[in-house]
Amino acid sequence: MTQDYFDRFFAGETLAASRLMSIVEAGGKAGEAVLNRLFPEVGRAYRIGVTGFTGAGKSTLVDAVSRRYRDAEKSVGVIAEDPSSPFTGGAILGDRVRMQQASDDGVFIRSIASRGSETGLSACATQLADVLDAFGRDIIFLETIGIGQLEYRIRHMAHTTCVVLTPDAGDDVQSLKSGLMEVGEVFVVNKADRENARRYADDLRSMLELRQNADWLPPVVETVGTREKGIGELHEAIERHREYLSQDGRLEEKRVESLRDRVTLVADERLRELFWGNDTIRKKLDSIVASVVAGKKSPYEAAREILEPLAINSRK
Amino acid sequence: MTQDYFDRFFAGETLAASRLMSIVEAGGKAGEAVLNRLFPEVGRAYRIGVTGFTGAGKSTLVDAVSRRYRDAEKSVGVIAEDPSSPFTGGAILGDRVRMQQASDDGVFIRSIASRGSETGLSACATQLADVLDAFGRDIIFLETIGIGQLEYRIRHMAHTTCVVLTPDAGDDVQSLKSGLMEVGEVFVVNKADRENARRYADDLRSMLELRQNADWLPPVVETVGTREKGIGELHEAIERHREYLSQDGRLEEKRVESLRDRVTLVADERLRELFWGNDTIRKKLDSIVASVVAGKKSPYEAAREILEPLAINSRK
Repeated sequence: MTQDYFDRFFAGETLAASRLMSIVEAGGKAGEAVLNRLFPEVGRAYRIGVTGFTGAGKSTLVDAVSRRYRDAEKSVGVIAEDPSSPFTGGAILGDRVRMQQASDDGVFIRSIASRGSETGLSACATQLADVLDAFGRDIIFLETIGIGQLEYRIRHMAHTTCVVLTPDAGDDVQSLKSGLMEVGEVFVVNKADRENARRYADDLRSMLELRQNADWLPPVVETVGTREKGIGELHEAIERHREYLSQDGRLEEKRVESLRDRVTLVADERLRELFWGNDTIRKKLDSIVASVVAGKKSPYEAAREILEPLAINSRK
Repeated sequence: MTQDYFDRFFAGETLAASRLMSIVEAGGKAGEAVLNRLFPEVGRAYRIGVTGFTGAGKSTLVDAVSRRYRDAEKSVGVIAEDPSSPFTGGAILGDRVRMQQASDDGVFIRSIASRGSETGLSACATQLADVLDAFGRDIIFLETIGIGQLEYRIRHMAHTTCVVLTPDAGDDVQSLKSGLMEVGEVFVVNKADRENARRYADDLRSMLELRQNADWLPPVVETVGTREKGIGELHEAIERHREYLSQDGRLEEKRVESLRDRVTLVADERLRELFWGNDTIRKKLDSIVASVVAGKKSPYEAAREILEPLAINSRK
């Protein structure tokens, strides 16, 4: 990556941004070099997490709220995890469809293909958001599929996290995971034209009030994304949370937590690479697996043994 | 855990099995001690993985196929990941509902609450399957939610992996992830009474034929789980794959791969515990995060530095 490329990036060339994002997404030394170079310029954007189950209508909501920000002359970027069913390779298709809608060049949309793990996916989304942040986007949406222990993944990815729910038949607010309740700073009941939506939203409000243990009571916004209903309210709710964060050092606190998280994630990944990439360990694994196969050791005893060569020098 | 408990377990007491599973699920030294004690008895059960998106009808299929095995006088165990929406704490509810159906004591059903990560979930499911295996169950179903990089998770969990799909409006076989295509040994098109089901199944068959690179061409079975249609065919397809595996040392090959995987997973988890549990590392993390916050280092440079005290002794 030549200096020339970075110059074009900082001059606001979309193609240069796309190219840097591809390098970052591919990972490795080159990706890291880009991130190191951009890091001093990262930290100005406001990041909005939008999470929810496949089919909840996240993309439609993100598109609609983006327009509000565009109207207010803010530049917008969107990082979307595979926007389709977990069973389809939706990233490519989704990219194409959404790119077409994004004719307004104030919105930069990027889908991420899936990664080896959920953690890998979050790490990649955060890195791409960093590129858009350094690129000067004011607002960055991180659209994530809520799967598994999502609370673990998205806790520090965004400044404001919106949890998008839909009132499906038979769904009960009581059954929402407590972790999900804790991670949401704004709740959206989308498809609010459905029969039981109002009751669902009211139940959600009662539950949030009961649980409240901080100064911020997460608002519940009712929307119909496909008919642009409730979008203004959602935009306002996000902005109210942003205002809240801007007080009493809360934004700085979030920044520290998020950086700590990031360092830990990167170190974790590298720890595994170093360990399993080591010749001694690889040979040891082969011989130990052989004795597990022969029934001489349990996998747990074997795992303990593999870790024996590991040492942490306290002087360094 | 007293010897008496293991005696009751090996005598076939369901309560003792439940108790041991709870200990294993809780993890730690006690869980590991149970797994070590049971390991010599593990390896007789046939494991059938059933994976698919939430709502695909996996539980209904597993229940129906279980009955076929029960009719053939096989004892059955089911390990089910959170059977409800990823957004609900379904494990508890699911447990209750399914336990009631399992009045036949030849079927032992156990749901797992979600874990810190997908990998943690797979590891836990495999461990609980080990307990049921040692308990003498002939057939063990591992019902997993297909999320994220599921191919990565379930590759070595089962002897026969069934991928359950449903032909939803607009779905296209072409968009199925290639990883998913590779992991399935039996494909099920459930809800086959839907309009486009036949075409979907046919497309799937064509695609599998094109991709075929081994001796085994995965069959595509059309089922309507709720009306018990196609259950006999599904049962037969699984048994045909089992028969295939029993030849040419394939079963042994699967066993070795699965044990290698298991050792690696356990060691991986422990590696992180050892590393981050170390005092030197924890102190180092604090001071390094501070310099990232101050803008003196990027998170990537910081991560490299944290790993410096790591050493792998080649003599051990």
